Amino acid sequence: MKKINLTIWNEFRHEKKHEEVRKIYPDGLHRTIAGYLAAEDLDIRCVSLDEPEQGLPDEVLNSTDVLIWWGHCAHSAVADELVERIRDRVIHGMGLIVLHSGHYSKIFRRMMGTECRLLWREVGEKERLWVVDPGHPIAAGLPATFALPNSEMYGEYFDIPQDGHIVFMSWFEGGNVFRSGVAFQRDRGKIFYFSPGHESYPIYHDPNIIKVLANAVRWAAPAKIFPDRITPQPESLETIRTANPYGSVH
Amino acid sequence: MKKINLTIWNEFRHEKKHEEVRKIYPDGLHRTIAGYLAAEDLDIRCVSLDEPEQGLPDEVLNSTDVLIWWGHCAHSAVADELVERIRDRVIHGMGLIVLHSGHYSKIFRRMMGTECRLLWREVGEKERLWVVDPGHPIAAGLPATFALPNSEMYGEYFDIPQDGHIVFMSWFEGGNVFRSGVAFQRDRGKIFYFSPGHESYPIYHDPNIIKVLANAVRWAAPAKIFPDRITPQPESLETIRTANPYGSVH
Amino acid sequence: MKKINLTIWNEFRHEKKHEEVRKIYPDGLHRTIAGYLAAEDLDIRCVSLDEPEQGLPDEVLNSTDVLIWWGHCAHSAVADELVERIRDRVIHGMGLIVLHSGHYSKIFRRMMGTECRLLWREVGEKERLWVVDPGHPIAAGLPATFALPNSEMYGEYFDIPQDGHIVFMSWFEGGNVFRSGVAFQRDRGKIFYFSPGHESYPIYHDPNIIKVLANAVRWAAPAKIFPDRITPQPESLETIRTANPYGSVH
Amino acid sequence: MKKINLTIWNEFRHEKKHEEVRKIYPDGLHRTIAGYLAAEDLDIRCVSLDEPEQGLPDEVLNSTDVLIWWGHCAHSAVADELVERIRDRVIHGMGLIVLHSGHYSKIFRRMMGTECRLLWREVGEKERLWVVDPGHPIAAGLPATFALPNSEMYGEYFDIPQDGHIVFMSWFEGGNVFRSGVAFQRDRGKIFYFSPGHESYPIYHDPNIIKVLANAVRWAAPAKIFPDRITPQPESLETIRTANPYGSVH
Repeated sequence: MKKINLTIWNEFRHEKKHEEVRKIYPDGLHRTIAGYLAAEDLDIRCVSLDEPEQGLPDEVLNSTDVLIWWGHCAHSAVADELVERIRDRVIHGMGLIVLHSGHYSKIFRRMMGTECRLLWREVGEKERLWVVDPGHPIAAGLPATFALPNSEMYGEYFDIPQDGHIVFMSWFEGGNVFRSGVAFQRDRGKIFYFSPGHESYPIYHDPNIIKVLANAVRWAAPAKIFPDRITPQPESLETIRTANPYGSVH
Repeated sequence: MKKINLTIWNEFRHEKKHEEVRKIYPDGLHRTIAGYLAAEDLDIRCVSLDEPEQGLPDEVLNSTDVLIWWGHCAHSAVADELVERIRDRVIHGMGLIVLHSGHYSKIFRRMMGTECRLLWREVGEKERLWVVDPGHPIAAGLPATFALPNSEMYGEYFDIPQDGHIVFMSWFEGGNVFRSGVAFQRDRGKIFYFSPGHESYPIYHDPNIIKVLANAVRWAAPAKIFPDRITPQPESLETIRTANPYGSVH
Repeated sequence: MKKINLTIWNEFRHEKKHEEVRKIYPDGLHRTIAGYLAAEDLDIRCVSLDEPEQGLPDEVLNSTDVLIWWGHCAHSAVADELVERIRDRVIHGMGLIVLHSGHYSKIFRRMMGTECRLLWREVGEKERLWVVDPGHPIAAGLPATFALPNSEMYGEYFDIPQDGHIVFMSWFEGGNVFRSGVAFQRDRGKIFYFSPGHESYPIYHDPNIIKVLANAVRWAAPAKIFPDRITPQPESLETIRTANPYGSVH
Repeated sequence: MKKINLTIWNEFRHEKKHEEVRKIYPDGLHRTIAGYLAAEDLDIRCVSLDEPEQGLPDEVLNSTDVLIWWGHCAHSAVADELVERIRDRVIHGMGLIVLHSGHYSKIFRRMMGTECRLLWREVGEKERLWVVDPGHPIAAGLPATFALPNSEMYGEYFDIPQDGHIVFMSWFEGGNVFRSGVAFQRDRGKIFYFSPGHESYPIYHDPNIIKVLANAVRWAAPAKIFPDRITPQPESLETIRTANPYGSVH
């Protein structure tokens, strides 16, 4: 069996700076997620922003099948050149799973073309998720609804493109609603955005959340990474009989 | 009646360099299009790349309701900063109509998030367009099918997002097919891509093509340009009773 | 100005049977809605199930541009033949606005192809609507969010097709969420489903709800009703040179 | 390994009536397809219209994971009751692959809600298919384009819902284009329509066509068949504090 090469990228700064966050994720939330996701069909690497080449040198990125992305306070520190390399890899087939505040990451906004803004409130209110497409592979094995006792509110209006396939919607105690799990395809790559995951709460210790991530990794994994495309096609496949009185100045 | 402020942006270099193109569009194809589109409900401005601020200083862009974009050989000359200003205006409601080789313009690719590549062949073969959504306002008054005697081939696979609403599909003599008229929405702005329009052929003298553009301008015109959004929402609308044992480190 | 012919169809049985409902809608909720929607550009007719030909004889249906549908306890009483006539008119361009429990009407389920089922609870809890596409014409002039003090809960999972363009999403006090305003296109006709509207509460007296309906009528109104289509096309538009060694047994 | 239960339903009348068709498909096209699709992970059954219960008694239909449907001259002979049973099974998860003239079958039109009409011409012209989504599992292993030397023309406008995910588009020698491979989801079931397959031509002997069908069967196979849903939810998950001054007359 060919394993899925999963790379989990974490900004990994909150955990170093804040005692409260470190208590929940002592080695960084990427390693917590990696621990829970560990499985026979996955080869998992954990990388972070302050490593060489921001954790994604060519040899890592170009052998990644699915990339999980968690970033928050340091979006602007991510090199534009890295964003383009990631985008290029998605275009060729790599899966991309963007978590929580990654909605405002350079890479997610770059892939969407829009601003990807949303209402937010950080007071630890209750969030309740609902499965909106029970037949979707990312919802497999999950209950129709499940709650997170404390969460950051992310609310509509969320300016994502209209082809977002909604897998989860969230209810917030404070009166907001949100498309909290949304699947996209961009060229040959799959993208899944999943909003729960504020660093102050033990959300990545929740079995339902981990189940969503586990499903999403398998869903986003490409059958293959596609080669580059050649687009000029000077020879036609069918006979052209029309005269061209204008010549070509291309 | 409030008029629609339409700005037609043309790269305007082929017309200066090539006698063959100048014969077809003596004053630039933007002015040819403007002449045909002239109507009571439109205020039309023609601008081009080699004008100050590349033709779109703030006072022009910020009073534009719909922007038509034709570019080809000088995509890379368009300033990134201008691309961001245009994108920002689309996000707030401005309509954007991208023509022909504009599929590979910075602004279109920026809005789509993908590479927007396609097969192409420039031998002047016949193109035949089909209306794929007869009820769509951009197809109003058009025949079910119409032909262009000479055209550049643009063919699938075209890597645009899946929410492209297909209004026209094209048949090419040499055996290719293409989604030649595709409508998108990005945040509050509408975008229409329309592929016919190679500079060597008198395509913008064709009444059906002009009809498509005329329809597209009205379709893309916003009811209004929206103000900036405020996204932090510290006060909830419904009462939050859940205790937050974690504090906030946002 | 050509007026929009709006026909409001109401089952009109709850109002006759229940004193509580009659207090809120003395002449039937269709007439309440008609009173609020009255405007220069609309010609409004009110019809109901127990009228001849169930309120929609040919001369009414075939002169209707937009049909509003409210039904609940008597879905099965609607003649299948009438459902097909309505569907045929939508296919040719008529707009259809389906309200509240009409999610389970024969006509809505016929247009969707799915069961259109949803969770429900009738205890008069609070509902809060959110605009999910502020640029959509049906959301024009509405606040980002507004509440209904008492409402029937309609909740996900709602098994509608994936091309439903979400204009509103609802939050319910009891913990549910719902895609409460969803726009579709079927052939040349537009369809809008809007869920608030239980007969026991004065929901159609709410100015925001009326604003949604007023917007939806203009959005759904067709530019024209299309003629029948002819689909055999024995003569080709381009020359066919391929030999057919098999003959035709069509 | 759990095998996929594939049932291939064929109208199976042309083959009996027409010598020319029988030459190409001596035992019926369903058996030809079954022969080519035979594989370790599939349990294949071949059934047809003139068998008891029109080939799909409960014990067959209710153990089918994916149903392939080919019908043409006898659409109206299919019992409405069978159509509803098939639809019910799709709603619960069964995959449905509709071939060629099945675009006008009762079951396909029932699932789509629209008329599903298209232009057609039966003169044996050349058809060329293009892959429009190279990353889609149904396109796996297929060339970017491939031709059928003789085919029936099916052309746009095809009035299917807007969420049809286009996998293949076709070019016809006579000047037409068509969305020839389109994927849908309806509730928990997947549906794929694939247009090539006129009975007079040996299309189901073509290796590319068979590859498409083989891919489509795996794509449409459900992870599981879902149980019935319960939709009244009288008990709320979150506490409701709002008073209901209106009572309930549901």
